[in-house]
Amino acid sequence: MIISMKKHATQQEINGVVEVIQQFGYRIHEIEGEERVVIGAIGTGDTSVCLQTLESMDSVEKAVPISVPYKFVSREFKNRRTTVTAAGNVHIGNSKFVVMAGPCSVESEQQILKSAELAAKGGAQVLRGGAFKPRTSPYDFQGMAEEGLKLLAKAREQTGLAIVTEVMSDADVALVAAYADIMQVGARNMQNFALLKALGKCGKPVLLKRGLSSTIRELLMSAEYIVAHGNNDVILCERGIRTFETATRNTCDIAAVAVLRELTHLPVILDPSHATGKRSLVPPLCKAGVAIGADGLIVEIHPNPQKAVSDGAQSLDPALWLKMMEDLGPYIALWQKDKAQAV
Amino acid sequence: MIISMKKHATQQEINGVVEVIQQFGYRIHEIEGEERVVIGAIGTGDTSVCLQTLESMDSVEKAVPISVPYKFVSREFKNRRTTVTAAGNVHIGNSKFVVMAGPCSVESEQQILKSAELAAKGGAQVLRGGAFKPRTSPYDFQGMAEEGLKLLAKAREQTGLAIVTEVMSDADVALVAAYADIMQVGARNMQNFALLKALGKCGKPVLLKRGLSSTIRELLMSAEYIVAHGNNDVILCERGIRTFETATRNTCDIAAVAVLRELTHLPVILDPSHATGKRSLVPPLCKAGVAIGADGLIVEIHPNPQKAVSDGAQSLDPALWLKMMEDLGPYIALWQKDKAQAV
Amino acid sequence: MIISMKKHATQQEINGVVEVIQQFGYRIHEIEGEERVVIGAIGTGDTSVCLQTLESMDSVEKAVPISVPYKFVSREFKNRRTTVTAAGNVHIGNSKFVVMAGPCSVESEQQILKSAELAAKGGAQVLRGGAFKPRTSPYDFQGMAEEGLKLLAKAREQTGLAIVTEVMSDADVALVAAYADIMQVGARNMQNFALLKALGKCGKPVLLKRGLSSTIRELLMSAEYIVAHGNNDVILCERGIRTFETATRNTCDIAAVAVLRELTHLPVILDPSHATGKRSLVPPLCKAGVAIGADGLIVEIHPNPQKAVSDGAQSLDPALWLKMMEDLGPYIALWQKDKAQAV
Amino acid sequence: MIISMKKHATQQEINGVVEVIQQFGYRIHEIEGEERVVIGAIGTGDTSVCLQTLESMDSVEKAVPISVPYKFVSREFKNRRTTVTAAGNVHIGNSKFVVMAGPCSVESEQQILKSAELAAKGGAQVLRGGAFKPRTSPYDFQGMAEEGLKLLAKAREQTGLAIVTEVMSDADVALVAAYADIMQVGARNMQNFALLKALGKCGKPVLLKRGLSSTIRELLMSAEYIVAHGNNDVILCERGIRTFETATRNTCDIAAVAVLRELTHLPVILDPSHATGKRSLVPPLCKAGVAIGADGLIVEIHPNPQKAVSDGAQSLDPALWLKMMEDLGPYIALWQKDKAQAV
Repeated sequence: MIISMKKHATQQEINGVVEVIQQFGYRIHEIEGEERVVIGAIGTGDTSVCLQTLESMDSVEKAVPISVPYKFVSREFKNRRTTVTAAGNVHIGNSKFVVMAGPCSVESEQQILKSAELAAKGGAQVLRGGAFKPRTSPYDFQGMAEEGLKLLAKAREQTGLAIVTEVMSDADVALVAAYADIMQVGARNMQNFALLKALGKCGKPVLLKRGLSSTIRELLMSAEYIVAHGNNDVILCERGIRTFETATRNTCDIAAVAVLRELTHLPVILDPSHATGKRSLVPPLCKAGVAIGADGLIVEIHPNPQKAVSDGAQSLDPALWLKMMEDLGPYIALWQKDKAQAV
Repeated sequence: MIISMKKHATQQEINGVVEVIQQFGYRIHEIEGEERVVIGAIGTGDTSVCLQTLESMDSVEKAVPISVPYKFVSREFKNRRTTVTAAGNVHIGNSKFVVMAGPCSVESEQQILKSAELAAKGGAQVLRGGAFKPRTSPYDFQGMAEEGLKLLAKAREQTGLAIVTEVMSDADVALVAAYADIMQVGARNMQNFALLKALGKCGKPVLLKRGLSSTIRELLMSAEYIVAHGNNDVILCERGIRTFETATRNTCDIAAVAVLRELTHLPVILDPSHATGKRSLVPPLCKAGVAIGADGLIVEIHPNPQKAVSDGAQSLDPALWLKMMEDLGPYIALWQKDKAQAV
Repeated sequence: MIISMKKHATQQEINGVVEVIQQFGYRIHEIEGEERVVIGAIGTGDTSVCLQTLESMDSVEKAVPISVPYKFVSREFKNRRTTVTAAGNVHIGNSKFVVMAGPCSVESEQQILKSAELAAKGGAQVLRGGAFKPRTSPYDFQGMAEEGLKLLAKAREQTGLAIVTEVMSDADVALVAAYADIMQVGARNMQNFALLKALGKCGKPVLLKRGLSSTIRELLMSAEYIVAHGNNDVILCERGIRTFETATRNTCDIAAVAVLRELTHLPVILDPSHATGKRSLVPPLCKAGVAIGADGLIVEIHPNPQKAVSDGAQSLDPALWLKMMEDLGPYIALWQKDKAQAV
Repeated sequence: MIISMKKHATQQEINGVVEVIQQFGYRIHEIEGEERVVIGAIGTGDTSVCLQTLESMDSVEKAVPISVPYKFVSREFKNRRTTVTAAGNVHIGNSKFVVMAGPCSVESEQQILKSAELAAKGGAQVLRGGAFKPRTSPYDFQGMAEEGLKLLAKAREQTGLAIVTEVMSDADVALVAAYADIMQVGARNMQNFALLKALGKCGKPVLLKRGLSSTIRELLMSAEYIVAHGNNDVILCERGIRTFETATRNTCDIAAVAVLRELTHLPVILDPSHATGKRSLVPPLCKAGVAIGADGLIVEIHPNPQKAVSDGAQSLDPALWLKMMEDLGPYIALWQKDKAQAV
């Protein structure tokens, strides 16, 4: 339910409404707004009697059920865009375009420090890098685990970049949260509901990647899991879906970025590296991502892609990365102009 | 086979090579280039003996088979980009971005003339509009047929716009070619090989839309049909593919534009209307299409979308169309700058 | 509209109803049934006034609109299953399971005659074989055209098998109909509406293959095209759809057979050869096709698959074909028992 | 690597080979066979020197690398079919067809006991029922958790049926293993690698469902995770994949059953309930599943589907379930005859 209070409702009136909601057995999710307060409440079962009671109260402007199955991530609930802040100083979903870059996996101290320098030099604000790696084969490199997390922390120290890294199990959430600034949920875990619930209480922003064959609605439902379990700081990521086409590793559903901007207040970024799986396609897709209005990009780069343990074919080498960021400049400038006008 | 002649080979030497090719039973497809002539030849069966013979000739620099299954549309065969010229003055695949716009179907004289004016006012160079309509249901409006073609010709007269319209059967090719400046092959007919063969001899440029579930390779093979049957003027069009996602009518495989630019010299345009099926998503997707480097756009507009006989939900109304074209301006300017640098 | 007459309505009463329908501008599609006559009528626009008028007539039991978009192919319109008869003596959709077999393409007289003998020996009633071949590449074998049709006719003469062969263009319908007993529409042409319309008037049964990415609903709409244009004898064919899976050539949507049996009265057969693309998978899939209740199978066989011009990998060799038909025996016996109980 | 010992190699010779393998840093996975022993070894890096060394040993017949990425689940490694035994007396992958049945979720004591009776009455050997439920929405019923497991154990006591139930997190593996006879991995968790690793050490057979958009190869790779981590008792399950078709909940890739039987020695069962999502389609698909050679079925049934908390539309009611099992009888008899001949 969304309850809009009348303009200038007093704190006492608000408290009265909250009380009624709780008496009906619902839970207050969030109280939003200044001049006109909006209260979000949640619970199961028929809400009609409660809504009628609320609507009959003098201080209540309107009390309506939320019609979409994802409630608190919907723009129906909150029209103003959410800005997620990571590491205190990186704001995603704001007036500044955010670039996250780094290697697929943390491979060694030298590799991750070099990658971090390179990311920073190109203008990224966040360093990506996997310490826990979901690999199709049990015989492939599974990541450096905590050792990798420590190296990421070291890279943060040296460059000031925030860290985004993947967590694969609810059992690892506390460990990863001790090092990461943003907790990444990989595409294969988008519907690992035990993990999503644990992330609802992890205290760090979550980067939620769309599953290979997940609909936009399912992506929002998974975001709703995290929010409903206590964590409002969710960043969505389109990273390509699985289709019949094999010319690219996945099919980048770029329109999903525009669809998501209509349906949710959460920030949305694009991963052109997994979407295409091919280095040469990353720069043109990045331009498209900026142009369609994504809040940011997450790009795989590597100091030496030929030697990468994983995903070398889609990682940008230093020259290509720096050139791309330079070329993106005018597009990001247009993006910021559009953003300023929209506000 | 591609036979590169030595620099400054004489016309007599070229003739000699052509003769050898024909003696082996192959057909000359195209002779390209000025300073250094490249000869494309085609035929079935083992080419190895012929290639050896050619390589042994003094005037021949190199004679190689084409390794991809699409030969004459490949960049292997011709690296320089093709510019397709329609109606004498519209150049697609050139340094100018081309916009095609118009209603889904020609519905009446007033409707198509109004649409044409609107298209021209927004800056389009080509008017789209269907006279023969491929409709899933036999009970839906099937188009005005030749009457519709005549109205399109009238709109061309009044506005100077070139005309692109769909042809659905090889039996109709001559009729449609008598009116259209560009012959459109719809997604459902991309592998209607009888139609493609007929279009090889129609004397007009062809706009070939990608099939709903066709791979990029199959799109190029279908283009190859048209080219191999005598018509080099093919424009490719990404219009969304069919996937599991239902939030949009189709899934826009925008990366296909970048992939096609690597594989073929043919121009590539984007259809954001069929790709999304939803009006509000068209403007952001158009920006993305420009940014990724498409050679143009084909957009559905309607003077009064609420009254459209077909595809009303995805057609832009006049205000949205004019606003979009204005907003696209700076993106097209960037596109042109990138193009100028690439040359 | 479906108008059910009262039991024992007289011919005069029926004529009266037909007159009313025509006065409202609708067209009579079919008059069905003996004891209780059912009239199917068709036309565009609002049918409510006409339905009211009909319902007020004494001889009319019930007059209802058809709620699905495919009307005359729906079980709503006609619950009794359609039996399509080809060549006078092959009944598809009846109490006998029908097997169609033969090579992908007609390659030579010897090849097609040997194939026909082999088909007959295994127990097939219909010989398949392509004279017009839809090939992805313009450089691949395109079929023997009329020469191939003549060879098929010769094979029919020698074996008594009926002939099913593909027609690719409305321009070829008359030619193919002069030789074939069943006209096949290939998957790529399922929405070639010009072809479907022409087949509505061809006077021969049509085997309509499901498109690679066509929904079941679209398949029925395409069948409706043929029926609405005058031809009730349509056989549907599930032949695999295009998905992300590459272990098989296509993904056999076997449940579609069961779905179609719920939605339409038309017979449905299964093509396990194109569905899998792999010889060894054909026999198990044939068993499944019989078990799920398909009305028949269409199978690729070849006297010498290693030498087949096309689709060799999925063609059964003589030994495998004969063994499979033997093994299918008990399954077909169960099928017939189930059929007998259902009636 | 697969090392085939010579016939009648002594235990000492086998030990010698094992030693060499370990000296090269590889790990022994399994030693198989009686008359002729086959040793499976595993490890990373180039195996060529080790293979040469082994081949030079007198007691070794052949030493070859495994060419597919899934090693120990492949028929290359082990041609003889695996029989998985659950609860001591249910043998899957053997000469007896196995049926698992039960409700989607455990809802109450009465419901699960009634379901168990019903399952047993129809002839099932295993009771299914979810205590931990992966639900798209955080607001949907999430299962009874341990309470549900206890009820399942009670149902086992009363009926003698073995229990299969889902585990959603590596953190819950020990808890679920304390009650279940077979641990189910749901489609959404097929690539939850942390869970798969934990199941490698759980001591109970695992039923691994294919992911919604997972390839057959990926399914085998996930099975390989479980096997490589110590658990050979894996049962695979085809349950429909996600495609563009919406007439059914998923698209049943029934040919995958036949493909898997070629590629792996592990048993394969079919889930017609999730594959179709519609009650009326379950019985025909079950027949097809038996006919194509699946080792068993897992079917949703409910004493009162109208009141089911989840998946009611696809659950069989008592009458339909009992009728279906009766009708399946002759098909299962044919299955057993085919099986007996194959041995």
